[in-house]
Amino acid sequence: MFMPRAYDRAITIFSPEGRLYQVEYALELVKRGAPIVGVSSPEGAVIAANETPESRLENPEYFRKIFQLDEHVGAAIAGLSSDARVLISQARLFCQSNRLLYDEPVDMEVLTRRIGDLAQVYTQHAGVRPFGVSMIIAGVDGKEGRVLTTDPSGSYRGYMATAVGRKSDEANRLLEERYKDGISLDEAAGLAVEAVREASEGDVTSSVVKVAIVPADTRTFRRLTDEEVTKHLK
Amino acid sequence: MFMPRAYDRAITIFSPEGRLYQVEYALELVKRGAPIVGVSSPEGAVIAANETPESRLENPEYFRKIFQLDEHVGAAIAGLSSDARVLISQARLFCQSNRLLYDEPVDMEVLTRRIGDLAQVYTQHAGVRPFGVSMIIAGVDGKEGRVLTTDPSGSYRGYMATAVGRKSDEANRLLEERYKDGISLDEAAGLAVEAVREASEGDVTSSVVKVAIVPADTRTFRRLTDEEVTKHLK
Amino acid sequence: MFMPRAYDRAITIFSPEGRLYQVEYALELVKRGAPIVGVSSPEGAVIAANETPESRLENPEYFRKIFQLDEHVGAAIAGLSSDARVLISQARLFCQSNRLLYDEPVDMEVLTRRIGDLAQVYTQHAGVRPFGVSMIIAGVDGKEGRVLTTDPSGSYRGYMATAVGRKSDEANRLLEERYKDGISLDEAAGLAVEAVREASEGDVTSSVVKVAIVPADTRTFRRLTDEEVTKHLK
Amino acid sequence: MFMPRAYDRAITIFSPEGRLYQVEYALELVKRGAPIVGVSSPEGAVIAANETPESRLENPEYFRKIFQLDEHVGAAIAGLSSDARVLISQARLFCQSNRLLYDEPVDMEVLTRRIGDLAQVYTQHAGVRPFGVSMIIAGVDGKEGRVLTTDPSGSYRGYMATAVGRKSDEANRLLEERYKDGISLDEAAGLAVEAVREASEGDVTSSVVKVAIVPADTRTFRRLTDEEVTKHLK
Amino acid sequence: MFMPRAYDRAITIFSPEGRLYQVEYALELVKRGAPIVGVSSPEGAVIAANETPESRLENPEYFRKIFQLDEHVGAAIAGLSSDARVLISQARLFCQSNRLLYDEPVDMEVLTRRIGDLAQVYTQHAGVRPFGVSMIIAGVDGKEGRVLTTDPSGSYRGYMATAVGRKSDEANRLLEERYKDGISLDEAAGLAVEAVREASEGDVTSSVVKVAIVPADTRTFRRLTDEEVTKHLK
Amino acid sequence: MFMPRAYDRAITIFSPEGRLYQVEYALELVKRGAPIVGVSSPEGAVIAANETPESRLENPEYFRKIFQLDEHVGAAIAGLSSDARVLISQARLFCQSNRLLYDEPVDMEVLTRRIGDLAQVYTQHAGVRPFGVSMIIAGVDGKEGRVLTTDPSGSYRGYMATAVGRKSDEANRLLEERYKDGISLDEAAGLAVEAVREASEGDVTSSVVKVAIVPADTRTFRRLTDEEVTKHLK
Amino acid sequence: MFMPRAYDRAITIFSPEGRLYQVEYALELVKRGAPIVGVSSPEGAVIAANETPESRLENPEYFRKIFQLDEHVGAAIAGLSSDARVLISQARLFCQSNRLLYDEPVDMEVLTRRIGDLAQVYTQHAGVRPFGVSMIIAGVDGKEGRVLTTDPSGSYRGYMATAVGRKSDEANRLLEERYKDGISLDEAAGLAVEAVREASEGDVTSSVVKVAIVPADTRTFRRLTDEEVTKHLK
Repeated sequence: MFMPRAYDRAITIFSPEGRLYQVEYALELVKRGAPIVGVSSPEGAVIAANETPESRLENPEYFRKIFQLDEHVGAAIAGLSSDARVLISQARLFCQSNRLLYDEPVDMEVLTRRIGDLAQVYTQHAGVRPFGVSMIIAGVDGKEGRVLTTDPSGSYRGYMATAVGRKSDEANRLLEERYKDGISLDEAAGLAVEAVREASEGDVTSSVVKVAIVPADTRTFRRLTDEEVTKHLK
Repeated sequence: MFMPRAYDRAITIFSPEGRLYQVEYALELVKRGAPIVGVSSPEGAVIAANETPESRLENPEYFRKIFQLDEHVGAAIAGLSSDARVLISQARLFCQSNRLLYDEPVDMEVLTRRIGDLAQVYTQHAGVRPFGVSMIIAGVDGKEGRVLTTDPSGSYRGYMATAVGRKSDEANRLLEERYKDGISLDEAAGLAVEAVREASEGDVTSSVVKVAIVPADTRTFRRLTDEEVTKHLK
Repeated sequence: MFMPRAYDRAITIFSPEGRLYQVEYALELVKRGAPIVGVSSPEGAVIAANETPESRLENPEYFRKIFQLDEHVGAAIAGLSSDARVLISQARLFCQSNRLLYDEPVDMEVLTRRIGDLAQVYTQHAGVRPFGVSMIIAGVDGKEGRVLTTDPSGSYRGYMATAVGRKSDEANRLLEERYKDGISLDEAAGLAVEAVREASEGDVTSSVVKVAIVPADTRTFRRLTDEEVTKHLK
Repeated sequence: MFMPRAYDRAITIFSPEGRLYQVEYALELVKRGAPIVGVSSPEGAVIAANETPESRLENPEYFRKIFQLDEHVGAAIAGLSSDARVLISQARLFCQSNRLLYDEPVDMEVLTRRIGDLAQVYTQHAGVRPFGVSMIIAGVDGKEGRVLTTDPSGSYRGYMATAVGRKSDEANRLLEERYKDGISLDEAAGLAVEAVREASEGDVTSSVVKVAIVPADTRTFRRLTDEEVTKHLK
Repeated sequence: MFMPRAYDRAITIFSPEGRLYQVEYALELVKRGAPIVGVSSPEGAVIAANETPESRLENPEYFRKIFQLDEHVGAAIAGLSSDARVLISQARLFCQSNRLLYDEPVDMEVLTRRIGDLAQVYTQHAGVRPFGVSMIIAGVDGKEGRVLTTDPSGSYRGYMATAVGRKSDEANRLLEERYKDGISLDEAAGLAVEAVREASEGDVTSSVVKVAIVPADTRTFRRLTDEEVTKHLK
Repeated sequence: MFMPRAYDRAITIFSPEGRLYQVEYALELVKRGAPIVGVSSPEGAVIAANETPESRLENPEYFRKIFQLDEHVGAAIAGLSSDARVLISQARLFCQSNRLLYDEPVDMEVLTRRIGDLAQVYTQHAGVRPFGVSMIIAGVDGKEGRVLTTDPSGSYRGYMATAVGRKSDEANRLLEERYKDGISLDEAAGLAVEAVREASEGDVTSSVVKVAIVPADTRTFRRLTDEEVTKHLK
Repeated sequence: MFMPRAYDRAITIFSPEGRLYQVEYALELVKRGAPIVGVSSPEGAVIAANETPESRLENPEYFRKIFQLDEHVGAAIAGLSSDARVLISQARLFCQSNRLLYDEPVDMEVLTRRIGDLAQVYTQHAGVRPFGVSMIIAGVDGKEGRVLTTDPSGSYRGYMATAVGRKSDEANRLLEERYKDGISLDEAAGLAVEAVREASEGDVTSSVVKVAIVPADTRTFRRLTDEEVTKHLK
């Protein structure tokens, strides 16, 4: 209980057990963020997030957890929204450069690695702190939906379906039970909404659960309307 | 009680619970600032502030909480006025560049994000401290009034109506009770004044409550005269 | 008593209560400085200072608290004279640039904000300490006398009349009691001298109280002679 | 128990016993990483790794411990994958430059030393932390297979066969017992798989043990298929 | 007794009482330096110093406390001689530039302010320590002798006569008692020698007390010979 | 026991006893390194080292303690091999430059001083740690063999014969007893091997003791074969 | 005993008593160095040093305490030889530049001040430590021998005769007793050797005491042969 304190004051350095404390503390912040979920399907990919506003008077238009990165990719964030904006700006720029240079949509792993590489720099050099945000990046590569994640350490991983943020353990358990290979995009959206509900406290409504999809046929990011979300809420 | 002290001495870093202490301390400063309020309406936006001078001899001309950023946008500040000036200068410059580059008024979310991005940098890099100021940014986008806020972390949010600073909980409770969709600009100004009064200690007069509006038709920032404010004070 | 020490060792950072300790400590230094007073009048502005030398052999010619910044503006300082010189040099340069660029005397608020902006930088960046000086800036804008102040935080304010430095509370109480709107420049000078006397320990003479005025008609900074000061000492 | 803490807070410096604590802590991280194994043979070289995914839903396509560096060289990593990516990028760039400059494949020791030199810089200069990763580099030099390792200190060594990561002591003991000079590439692959199994907790399957080989005749890095791996699992 | 230690470790920062400890500690060093004295007269200015060598074998030629800065100005130092050399080099350069640019001897206050400005920088920025030296600068401005002082804070003051260094309180008391307006240059030299003797431990001889004068008529710095000094020692 | 800890945390600074702790700690590391020996003779110079590999499977080809620096000079290292590589690279570059510039082999003292100068910089500047390595540099200058050493402080010395590393006291005692002026190169090699054996734990074989010589006649660095080494092992 | 530790960890700063601890600690190192002596005479200057090697096998050719700086100047060092080399390189460069620029030998005080100025920088700026070396600089200026010293603070002084290093108090006492004005160069060399013997532990021989002279007539630095030194050892 006492020992950790000796290692976390300065830059991101190793503790005697070989852990990077600042990175682990940033992950604590992520774990307290509102839940986000990504589900992939042969027909495309889905991202869902709980965007419950702070108060009745908050304008939901300006409170977003889901962002479009490129025509065929979107991302959901858990953690510090101001930190996330830095990574999102860089990611969008990278997508555009890719289209300009190669005249084709960026490969999703290449994009995710790029975000991770940027985050890694902030864990190894003094004078900065790690980014306090994890992301779920979802879209279409080739003909299938794909879901990847990045975290404050700069690591990235790929998943069929995954949840990040508050109560993500519960949401991930639900995903593991219900995810089936060959799931349709519509089922994927339903599963994503269900997982967000699992991880959310209290009841959730279509004004609170936001969903975006990237169908494999159109390869175009699209936010679901409230009506579409409501359908998935039963 | 004892633990926090171990984490706040150096640059803005994460505590074991994943909090950025320097940012939270800056928010403490904001919470002690004189109350400011923003209210949006389909007819425009309103900002109000308590500008009670320090003494009878203070010249109110030089003590301001409300600033014009562009023809169609204004801002109120809570916290360190010297820190606020840095952000306001940058914001004005950004508004002017936008007009020069695109020949149109800056979008209010774009402007607010810019201020937030600047503030974020001061929370992630060593050698600086976060800005000790929160802002309410109010103006007209398209045909409607808009109210947004920034804080020391660099986050921004949008509201129908919101209060920041001393006793903002009381003021926000009042706003939540009385704010109605489709409120007129005149009612919005009245509500803003009322909320400032709620958050102010003791009695307030028109020489103390300052109000600025941006009507949706003129799209032009205007400070209310003392007479106009008096009207709203009943 | 013990806690503050944990927060003031490094750069200027926030304490858990949202205070900038280094700035507050610099203000302590200012409060121990010899008293300075500024009084505005429709006919001009007055600055007065206690320039009691350290010993009988000190050459008063080189011990000054009052400085001319431009033809129409002067300043009095409380705190570290070596720090003050840095700000005064910058202020003079700014006044000259303004005349060169716009061919007119600098606006007094613009000048004071400039000094404040410079001071603010020293409160937000590592590797420097705040300036240990507060200033009263007095002069003529348009047709009236004006009095403004800056402090180590970079904040600035305007006053009809104000005192800074040792026993400024007593001096300000006197100013609040006796200041009258429409006061003549001669009365303003008398009031300024009285306020310096109030804040000074022991008896004061014309060789110790120094006064400078900027009349609204001439718009020209002028130091009062010992005889003129003596007149105001009764 | 208490003493070490005094030496590991700042940059990578020597302890009184002449140890570099940050480097040793990074090695702790490596020791907790999933096991990797390299085996050389006159017929080529083998790398094997335990790539057990985190959950049933993890997409193994994006979770790799084995990377191709050049046509004739591959590497396995133990430790922080985000740190490893930095070294792998640099290594690939170096391989390409070498081909461009000298029109021949890079010598394996030269490549490994380059990786080690980069890692060394991060142990001697302030403002960075050592890389939290060890690598096994395997490939073909001249006509034989070669296996080398790098660690966080920047040191490199060559081995007939070696294991790094979790339970590497057990795996290395097995390698020392069973490795024979003149081993065939097929036997080497079998031995590598066996060593990974020895170091892995629980049972392992072909979907979890990944193997890559560089045969001396083709000099071309190739990942074994699941079927090929299954064969080596008995 | 304990508290000061908390504030003096890092750069020159404010203590809770608004003091700059590093500057005050540098002044302690100055107070332990050998005594120096300056006396002004309508007929010129005098500097005197105790230049007692360390041992019988020290070569007094290389042990100086009095330096010529320009034809019409000299300086005596108390404190670290190696620090003093830095300021003296800069001062000489400034005097030469002034002659080149304006074709006239530098004004003594301008010169002294320049030295003070340089010293001030070393009290406000990190990465340096204040200069551990105070100076008495004496010479002729217009038609009169002048004496000014600088200290580690960068402040400067003017005096009819003043002493700095070891036992300067005693020497200053003597100067206050005996200094008379209109004193002749010869009397000034006598008084300066007497003050050095007052501040020196044990007996002093002409080989130990060094004196330099700048007569108002010649405006030329001149060191007194041992015979001339002996005359003033009675 | 307690005191040292207060002085070794930051850059390489002096302790109250005038010692550079970081340098002394680096020397501790050197003292734990495998033993190396250098012996000079009128007929040339010899370096010997214990290159016992870590395990039976280590490839001795990649584990070296002896390096050729130029045609006529070699070096043995004790300490961190990754640090040594930095110095060796610089030394080789320096040798080559020397041949290019002056068209002759570099003087051995000039080369050794260069290595020492580089090491010295790392003991006087912040942001780096000293090199954790000592070297024995052996070769031919003029017509004779020469042996020099460098250490982490940047000091260098010359010896007829010397040992560095683990149990170097024992080895040096042996060298002092048995070294004779006018020793032949063959005897020197035998003495070097003997000294390595003295300093090594357990029995040593020709596969473990490595020897390199620079004969005065050929002036060319040459590694002895295992057979040649075996001869010297009796 | 406890207090000093609070002030010596960071850069070279003032203690509450106005002392620069890092400089004083460097002086401790100098006081432990082998003794060096300088003696001046109207006929020239002498430097002597105890160059006792570490062991019987040390090559005295590479272990020097006395260095030639220019044709007419030499220097002896006490302290860290690696630090000394930095200053000696700079000094030699300065001597050469002087000859190139002015076509005459450098003045000895100018040279010594230059070395001191370099050392001073290392006592006032962060990121470096003071030089751990004192020097005796001896040579011929005009027609006489001169002896000057520098120390880690950057101060310099001149002496008829002086000793630095281990037991320098004893050696200086001897010099004070025996030094006579008008001493011949030969007597000066004898006195220097005697002083080195006084400061050395145990017996000293000509192979251990090294002497260099700069005669006033030749103005050329020359090392005495062993035979010449033996003569002075009686």
